[in-house]
Amino acid sequence: MIYMDNDYTHGAHPSIFNRLIETNDEGTSGYGTDRFTENAIQMIKEAIGREDIVVHLLSGGTQTNIVAITASLRPFQGVITADSGHINNLEAGAIEAVGHRMLSIPSEDGKIYAGEVKSLVDQYWNDNNNFHKVQPGMVYISNPTETGTIYSKQELIDLRHVCDQNNMVLFMDGARLGYGLVAETNDLSLADITELCDIYYFGGTKIGALFGEALIIGNNKLHHGMKTIIKQKGGLLAKGRALGIQFEVLFKNDLYLELSHHAVEQAMRLKKAFLDKGIALRYEAYTNQVFPILQNSQLEVLEKSYVMLKQEPVGDNHRVVRICTSWATDAKVINQFIKDIQAL
Amino acid sequence: MIYMDNDYTHGAHPSIFNRLIETNDEGTSGYGTDRFTENAIQMIKEAIGREDIVVHLLSGGTQTNIVAITASLRPFQGVITADSGHINNLEAGAIEAVGHRMLSIPSEDGKIYAGEVKSLVDQYWNDNNNFHKVQPGMVYISNPTETGTIYSKQELIDLRHVCDQNNMVLFMDGARLGYGLVAETNDLSLADITELCDIYYFGGTKIGALFGEALIIGNNKLHHGMKTIIKQKGGLLAKGRALGIQFEVLFKNDLYLELSHHAVEQAMRLKKAFLDKGIALRYEAYTNQVFPILQNSQLEVLEKSYVMLKQEPVGDNHRVVRICTSWATDAKVINQFIKDIQAL
Amino acid sequence: MIYMDNDYTHGAHPSIFNRLIETNDEGTSGYGTDRFTENAIQMIKEAIGREDIVVHLLSGGTQTNIVAITASLRPFQGVITADSGHINNLEAGAIEAVGHRMLSIPSEDGKIYAGEVKSLVDQYWNDNNNFHKVQPGMVYISNPTETGTIYSKQELIDLRHVCDQNNMVLFMDGARLGYGLVAETNDLSLADITELCDIYYFGGTKIGALFGEALIIGNNKLHHGMKTIIKQKGGLLAKGRALGIQFEVLFKNDLYLELSHHAVEQAMRLKKAFLDKGIALRYEAYTNQVFPILQNSQLEVLEKSYVMLKQEPVGDNHRVVRICTSWATDAKVINQFIKDIQAL
Amino acid sequence: MIYMDNDYTHGAHPSIFNRLIETNDEGTSGYGTDRFTENAIQMIKEAIGREDIVVHLLSGGTQTNIVAITASLRPFQGVITADSGHINNLEAGAIEAVGHRMLSIPSEDGKIYAGEVKSLVDQYWNDNNNFHKVQPGMVYISNPTETGTIYSKQELIDLRHVCDQNNMVLFMDGARLGYGLVAETNDLSLADITELCDIYYFGGTKIGALFGEALIIGNNKLHHGMKTIIKQKGGLLAKGRALGIQFEVLFKNDLYLELSHHAVEQAMRLKKAFLDKGIALRYEAYTNQVFPILQNSQLEVLEKSYVMLKQEPVGDNHRVVRICTSWATDAKVINQFIKDIQAL
Repeated sequence: MIYMDNDYTHGAHPSIFNRLIETNDEGTSGYGTDRFTENAIQMIKEAIGREDIVVHLLSGGTQTNIVAITASLRPFQGVITADSGHINNLEAGAIEAVGHRMLSIPSEDGKIYAGEVKSLVDQYWNDNNNFHKVQPGMVYISNPTETGTIYSKQELIDLRHVCDQNNMVLFMDGARLGYGLVAETNDLSLADITELCDIYYFGGTKIGALFGEALIIGNNKLHHGMKTIIKQKGGLLAKGRALGIQFEVLFKNDLYLELSHHAVEQAMRLKKAFLDKGIALRYEAYTNQVFPILQNSQLEVLEKSYVMLKQEPVGDNHRVVRICTSWATDAKVINQFIKDIQAL
Repeated sequence: MIYMDNDYTHGAHPSIFNRLIETNDEGTSGYGTDRFTENAIQMIKEAIGREDIVVHLLSGGTQTNIVAITASLRPFQGVITADSGHINNLEAGAIEAVGHRMLSIPSEDGKIYAGEVKSLVDQYWNDNNNFHKVQPGMVYISNPTETGTIYSKQELIDLRHVCDQNNMVLFMDGARLGYGLVAETNDLSLADITELCDIYYFGGTKIGALFGEALIIGNNKLHHGMKTIIKQKGGLLAKGRALGIQFEVLFKNDLYLELSHHAVEQAMRLKKAFLDKGIALRYEAYTNQVFPILQNSQLEVLEKSYVMLKQEPVGDNHRVVRICTSWATDAKVINQFIKDIQAL
Repeated sequence: MIYMDNDYTHGAHPSIFNRLIETNDEGTSGYGTDRFTENAIQMIKEAIGREDIVVHLLSGGTQTNIVAITASLRPFQGVITADSGHINNLEAGAIEAVGHRMLSIPSEDGKIYAGEVKSLVDQYWNDNNNFHKVQPGMVYISNPTETGTIYSKQELIDLRHVCDQNNMVLFMDGARLGYGLVAETNDLSLADITELCDIYYFGGTKIGALFGEALIIGNNKLHHGMKTIIKQKGGLLAKGRALGIQFEVLFKNDLYLELSHHAVEQAMRLKKAFLDKGIALRYEAYTNQVFPILQNSQLEVLEKSYVMLKQEPVGDNHRVVRICTSWATDAKVINQFIKDIQAL
Repeated sequence: MIYMDNDYTHGAHPSIFNRLIETNDEGTSGYGTDRFTENAIQMIKEAIGREDIVVHLLSGGTQTNIVAITASLRPFQGVITADSGHINNLEAGAIEAVGHRMLSIPSEDGKIYAGEVKSLVDQYWNDNNNFHKVQPGMVYISNPTETGTIYSKQELIDLRHVCDQNNMVLFMDGARLGYGLVAETNDLSLADITELCDIYYFGGTKIGALFGEALIIGNNKLHHGMKTIIKQKGGLLAKGRALGIQFEVLFKNDLYLELSHHAVEQAMRLKKAFLDKGIALRYEAYTNQVFPILQNSQLEVLEKSYVMLKQEPVGDNHRVVRICTSWATDAKVINQFIKDIQAL
């Protein structure tokens, strides 16, 4: 079976293992105080073009969300999120477990828009008795979203504006950010994101690392105490070097961009194949996820070879299916997949 | 400089990288549902000799402590621990952050004893107004302790007895358990520990893994919901395979024992060298940590070559120093270290 | 202005002050260990007809919800509630602040039904990867609901059944329970509720006390540690006697029923007046809340004399308004209110 | 039996009931938005002489501690307290339950001093790896302390200084503050305390109210969101008027001072009687608590008439006993008590 249900089905890019082995016998101090971590952080700062930011390396996405939200909110504040947001659906109540309520906005495409956010916060601030309510303290967005869509620069500027006017933190969950940066419809750079978001993370796990997320904090009000929070939430790796080394490799010669390009290219080839076959797509996405609406019979055929993620049924005979490519996707596999689509 | 201040100064045992690379191109499902994790868990069960236990693989020690304690305690319960316990000193309030108070017992050697625990719990249960107090719900022990000492089988049986009589969970933090198992003074097997503790973990990070701790749950009342707690606390790795593969390697042909033996042997060589030189040791330890009480002038000399962990001063002219060996310690380095001690 | 926007607009029933004064000079021990509290609890047990239950007296509703939910759920569990449930809307994230997520069900009439609950829990238990999700651990219902409706005995039996089958706690927020018990459509007794719910509370604040809620726990698995939780959550009053005395008064000669009858009678008179006038009601309610859909011009007139709670607009010219009666509502005021309705 | 084990053994000062009854039929809005609460807050501001502060009225001490600490600390911060501090001993882990660790300092007299605090915080800030540790974020003091002692103005100035230099909040638990203000050794005014502490509370429960504590916040950085926190923690009373009315009464014509004077006078009479009898006192206290070290035989005699709080034994034949007076203590009872002491 070929695993295409998500983008963490394979190990890590070989150059990561090479570098881990190469550095293996060098002794270092722990908990992210080693030279590899320091260097990785410096490389990330340079890729962004900002020296005044703070970067921490963590192991996983939920962990990073817990840390970022803990650091950003006061106890009486909650998180505005699309109802489809990862923190709202697939993190086992991790954010509520650290005390914060979700303030969710229904979303069709995985995104939330400034106007919707403004409407929600205005309702709060116009309520004289709002002490009965959780105060909106953060806007959480995934980019790319869980449905493969991405935010435009203007949309992010608009969200920034609402956040500024309502004293909220703008936080981007960038578990798949690499794939977003290389989408043909993207107009956001890392520098833009760093400027527009107070805090965000750049995912390594899904674009070539064995594990690892880089939390990037532009807003200097959020710098203080961050490492202690990471330790407190169980996110500080003893051998922090393992994270440092991986991010060094990903950012060396922009490997993360190269790997991202590859994955998105394969996804777009699949997308075209589905459309050519007359199979509609559930979401208009340009990143590494494709969401065809398959007939049940088509699904049955493809399931014989490919592991895909079944989502909601559409009518009696169809179902939305998620297919992911990644840095590890072999172009030859996609060649065959396209043939299989054509043969449906 | 040679890093000997702790046991996570180096990467991972080479066979771990070999196996990660060997399996890299195989697609698997995520979050610990892959075949490597399943196999690793089976190997651990076989090493223990119990099929009715539950095992989960996590990334780090603090994370594992958070998970185990969250799963074991009701909200009104606290943790009995040596004042020197890792959770009480070096985890940035991680346990308090999930709502539980430390009930600490002063300890000279890093251990707590059944009599002390009984005295503390009796005081609670004999108090008619104990609703003003946190209820003792767990006994937390480190084995080996933070000072390199270990529990005997009888001591563990005695603690088990107090726990049984007071409805408490017995939890062992085994971040360095491998090193304890091979100590010449040890009389505990993994089977014993599994029988006597409700829950414990076997540390991988410090004995050869890049990262990873195996949480082992004998008490079946604690099985339910454990994986959800791991996810909620940010401890569920997307590429769970990375943990599975590492524990497969550590438990294949008892590699963990071989690596542990090596480390403890080197520590005992250092210990002998200090004693031969007339340098006293702060703790009577038989595992991978040695705690000489060095003259400040001796410390100055050794610090030129070795990174060690400086602890409390003793009088005006001495200081306790922690030196750790690990799976990665080169015997030749210890040869030289011994010469350096002799030359002091 | 006449306050009718809620049912806590006035002080307390005079007999409560009489009894507080009468007992004022008697010394007692604190924290609910006094004879008044013991007696009040005994009276509540007798009113229910059960000696094997546990009763605690607390100060307010949110506090009681926090305590009951803390005691009932494991950390990975959440609360099923109507989206209109008080805990989901008007408690400033109190339940999330103790770590639990809301699993809300859209509701038209403030109630949730066994079928809806079953559907939600089935979805969870049928999901092989449900460790990414919060486990449904409790069904929370308000009775009467926030819209004045009540549950029938059969509906409660059905909810009990779903809870039993899915190992969930059934918790009733009875802040206005007295008013429910006397509704003409009610077929539930305190004994029924105690049998069918694991835990519930009987509100004093809204039916004649100055403050106070009686938490009643039928499920003996929830007895242990409850008083410590109350203390921990700041709900244990030093002068617990103040609660004991109030509940003694409310349960003496069924005063709570008498006061409840009075309030509901006044509400039904208002209800009839609105219907007679041709003014529709938003909810079909038989308790102490009336929800007329007023023309904006009618609202303007009534607002000159009465404080009411404005709710959502209906079309361009109407608005739903909440009017509450209580133990303190003067029948003469209602006479005048009815005249004012007739004159609209 | 005459209850003298604490200062919440009786109901409330009669003028409180008079005023509750007098205002009972007036309708008001809820949750502290009523005119009585507004007036009480204004009276408190005038008693302090500051208009720029924020005051909230809550029901009990633990609740108020939870609220104040939640509002003051970031998640990675803990509370410096005397080991004898109320939050550290008698609040069932309430502060840990909202995520904060105690950083306790051993105390002989219930007080902590600037030098001790400085030493603790210096150790933290001098540690390069302090991310493993909870950051000191608040100094909590009780005044009067649990042993009846009080802080001098200079001691409070010194603590303020350490807090300023280390960016910590200074919080005073004033559950018995009235009794402290009238002690013959006191040199602190409410104005001083408001200036020197960031936040503190003035206890009503123990000096004549049925219940109620006034939280006073001088530091305007802590004003935001406070009412939402109170609601979230279950501390916002629906009939907030009940708190407002009580504090109106206590602050009208300085009733709280009159009642406090009375209580302390009775305590000093007892103190003198013990000393005259040659019975030593455990703590040098000038407030409403007396701590004689009684022979067991003396204790046996007195216990026949008086409920007192037994504390630690002293040698084989003695025990420390706490005796409290309060606003409710009858001078005639003390006349008799003195005779009983003389007759020992």
